[in-house]
Amino acid sequence: MGVGHHEAAWRHPRTDSRNLSSVKHFQNLAQIAERGLLDSVFFADGLAVDPRVKHNIQAIFEPITLLTAIASATEHIGLIATASTGYLHPYTLARSFASLDHISGGRAGWNIVTSAGADEAANFGFDGIPDHAGRYRRAAEFVDIATALWDSWEDDALILDEATGIFADPAKVHSIDHSGEQFTVAGPLNSPRSPQGRPLLVQAGSSETGRDFAARYAEAIFTAQRSVEEGRAFYRDVKARAVAFGRSADDVLILPGIVPFLGPTAAAARELEQEFTDLISPEYSLRQLSQMLGVDLTAHALDAPLRPLPPIEQIQGNKSRYQLVKDLADHEALTVRQLIAKLGGGRGHRTIAGTPEQVADDLQEWFTAGAADGFNIMPPYLPGGLEDFVEQVVPILRRRGLFRTEYTATTLRGHYGLSHQPSRFTLHRERAGLLPDTPGKDSSSRTLVTAEQ
Amino acid sequence: MGVGHHEAAWRHPRTDSRNLSSVKHFQNLAQIAERGLLDSVFFADGLAVDPRVKHNIQAIFEPITLLTAIASATEHIGLIATASTGYLHPYTLARSFASLDHISGGRAGWNIVTSAGADEAANFGFDGIPDHAGRYRRAAEFVDIATALWDSWEDDALILDEATGIFADPAKVHSIDHSGEQFTVAGPLNSPRSPQGRPLLVQAGSSETGRDFAARYAEAIFTAQRSVEEGRAFYRDVKARAVAFGRSADDVLILPGIVPFLGPTAAAARELEQEFTDLISPEYSLRQLSQMLGVDLTAHALDAPLRPLPPIEQIQGNKSRYQLVKDLADHEALTVRQLIAKLGGGRGHRTIAGTPEQVADDLQEWFTAGAADGFNIMPPYLPGGLEDFVEQVVPILRRRGLFRTEYTATTLRGHYGLSHQPSRFTLHRERAGLLPDTPGKDSSSRTLVTAEQ
Repeated sequence: MGVGHHEAAWRHPRTDSRNLSSVKHFQNLAQIAERGLLDSVFFADGLAVDPRVKHNIQAIFEPITLLTAIASATEHIGLIATASTGYLHPYTLARSFASLDHISGGRAGWNIVTSAGADEAANFGFDGIPDHAGRYRRAAEFVDIATALWDSWEDDALILDEATGIFADPAKVHSIDHSGEQFTVAGPLNSPRSPQGRPLLVQAGSSETGRDFAARYAEAIFTAQRSVEEGRAFYRDVKARAVAFGRSADDVLILPGIVPFLGPTAAAARELEQEFTDLISPEYSLRQLSQMLGVDLTAHALDAPLRPLPPIEQIQGNKSRYQLVKDLADHEALTVRQLIAKLGGGRGHRTIAGTPEQVADDLQEWFTAGAADGFNIMPPYLPGGLEDFVEQVVPILRRRGLFRTEYTATTLRGHYGLSHQPSRFTLHRERAGLLPDTPGKDSSSRTLVTAEQ
Repeated sequence: MGVGHHEAAWRHPRTDSRNLSSVKHFQNLAQIAERGLLDSVFFADGLAVDPRVKHNIQAIFEPITLLTAIASATEHIGLIATASTGYLHPYTLARSFASLDHISGGRAGWNIVTSAGADEAANFGFDGIPDHAGRYRRAAEFVDIATALWDSWEDDALILDEATGIFADPAKVHSIDHSGEQFTVAGPLNSPRSPQGRPLLVQAGSSETGRDFAARYAEAIFTAQRSVEEGRAFYRDVKARAVAFGRSADDVLILPGIVPFLGPTAAAARELEQEFTDLISPEYSLRQLSQMLGVDLTAHALDAPLRPLPPIEQIQGNKSRYQLVKDLADHEALTVRQLIAKLGGGRGHRTIAGTPEQVADDLQEWFTAGAADGFNIMPPYLPGGLEDFVEQVVPILRRRGLFRTEYTATTLRGHYGLSHQPSRFTLHRERAGLLPDTPGKDSSSRTLVTAEQ
């Protein structure tokens, strides 16, 4: 939303709720992240709002347009927008991201979501929560089409010969002629190939189906993991799945989310966290929890333990988040009031309250233990929580050789150490022996975390 | 495309084809227009590209993202993006325009097109050219939904009370519960109301059905008219239709397109036009003509008259442009080579080659004769053609009292002399006597053309 990841952030004196509608504020946030040499900024998204909730905080801006405005105010940082395969069309989505990639000079990323909410379905003519497996089938077909469209103009298709009037080489502009279960799309895309070829593909599915989808398609995975052990297990599992899909383990980066509360002492950081917890509106949180679980808990007693939830097999919404909340409630024997306080910071992502050294230690532990390739930093309040992270935690990581000292790439794929992918049509030609090989992935250019392990 | 409206502009020495992919170039174009105190910049659009055409010039950027990038580089000028009711969804479209309106501080406009091309249909799973009447039925339902969604948050719905944690007044956030022939949409929009309430609605339909649609919905109409007599007839007709729909004649502005070639003498201007004509690629132009008419003329002899075309009743594409081209070919007894030269500048829009005084005289004549409320200036080449218009023609119009001397409004609706529309839900409450009246349209604020007649 721009005021912070804690759900009550907009009420805290460290934020200004007028920033919700200030483009300059969002541009400033990205500039702070860029000063810290972070890889990218990322906006979540949904396609509905509940009209009944007076405590409901609602974003003002749509991510692709907002990131386009941010592109004009920054030079290096990657720009990752969430967009849904559930209710958009692959032709228009592929084109919007190609345009963002052109406008930003190769900094676009797409966080692929499948839209599990019944309220979202109702805005697009569907009843109820769409079937989990069907959502992922549609997502796979959608991504297959989008990537084919991004490949439909080869890198060197544009000729632009003013003397002869030849604009493009028709041998390098391709129809895709897709005909599948959900979509029929002729192509080519109505946009020449963008600087990155395609946006960085990001995904957050952590269920069984979601992990397979992410391992097959994603180049970066956002995930909520509670402990370093669970994080390592997830990390190993997804990398193994990627290899089973014929990819390299390095082709997909695992980025757990963390919500850092920073203070000069651990006690001060915990006090700050408590200030935010005290601002939580239980009515809003119960609605959030109900939406997260797909179970109506809006009338649940606050000081009782969470009532038994249905088995996960019956859940059509976000299965991994469902499991995580269920585990939290069961294993830590929390009351609902304690549970919503725990979820208030990052909706299931891990909150760390501590000194900058302690937060840096935690990130280093996860990274060296093989539970993370990097992190999705979710400051509880903005801009202060991001400024503090950039000014206090990043320098410690940098001293330890765990963080870059300058941007060495110009694209988001470059920041993540991923190479430019040639179009599939160029590769077909290469395989047919008509062209020399193009350079492949150069793993030495990996710049996400310049680790000394 | 950014290099000019003449189809061969990118080949002429006065343009630089690298500008096609330069965001800074497009930002500069808008800044030039803003220096001239023009109302708005406008980008056409389509949802397909023909892979076979090597002379085919293809835009790099998608209009909504491009205009968002332009918003960051300008302060006053309106930003009109073309978007299709044929293949987008009203929920996502309403949201993108709301976001552009928020980001630009109330400068968004939507040029509503229905997408008549068979190649566009093939990218969205349809065969052949969609039926003309069906396209307009879908467009009407689409615009009804979009306007309802823009109204779904009333102007004062946001409370943002940090002390009580009340974000919005749920009595002022509304479901729309639309259920129609093409769409079922629950609402509300997932974006609070934008500065203009809704974007300016622009349309270019000039067929019978198109005129009715425009008269019912549009606040500005782009149109191609060949003579001042035809322009006056169109003007009177559309205004009368608007009145028949219960609107004021002032609620819809008629803006014919013109392609100005400027020179120090009329002969020099005509020579410049001829330079561009000489760069036309007949292969490309025949494809363009075929696409414009929905009739395959790619193998037509160039020095013969246009072969007889089918009657307009059989045309499912752009009927008014079809009629205009047919009239041109018939009445002026042109060969196909002459016809494509005539269409090369503005695809049916009127080309004026002359001195700045002559161009100003022409615009004044149309304006005072009641054939135009303003004009859509389509410079044949960019940025020079726009710079010349702003520096040479606008000052003449200003001296004659026909053009503003400063921006007096902050929104695009304000530039066009249209008032902020309250949400329909606010109006319902007013009618029920629960609120005092809000101020209505103030026609004295009309600033499009500050005429002294």
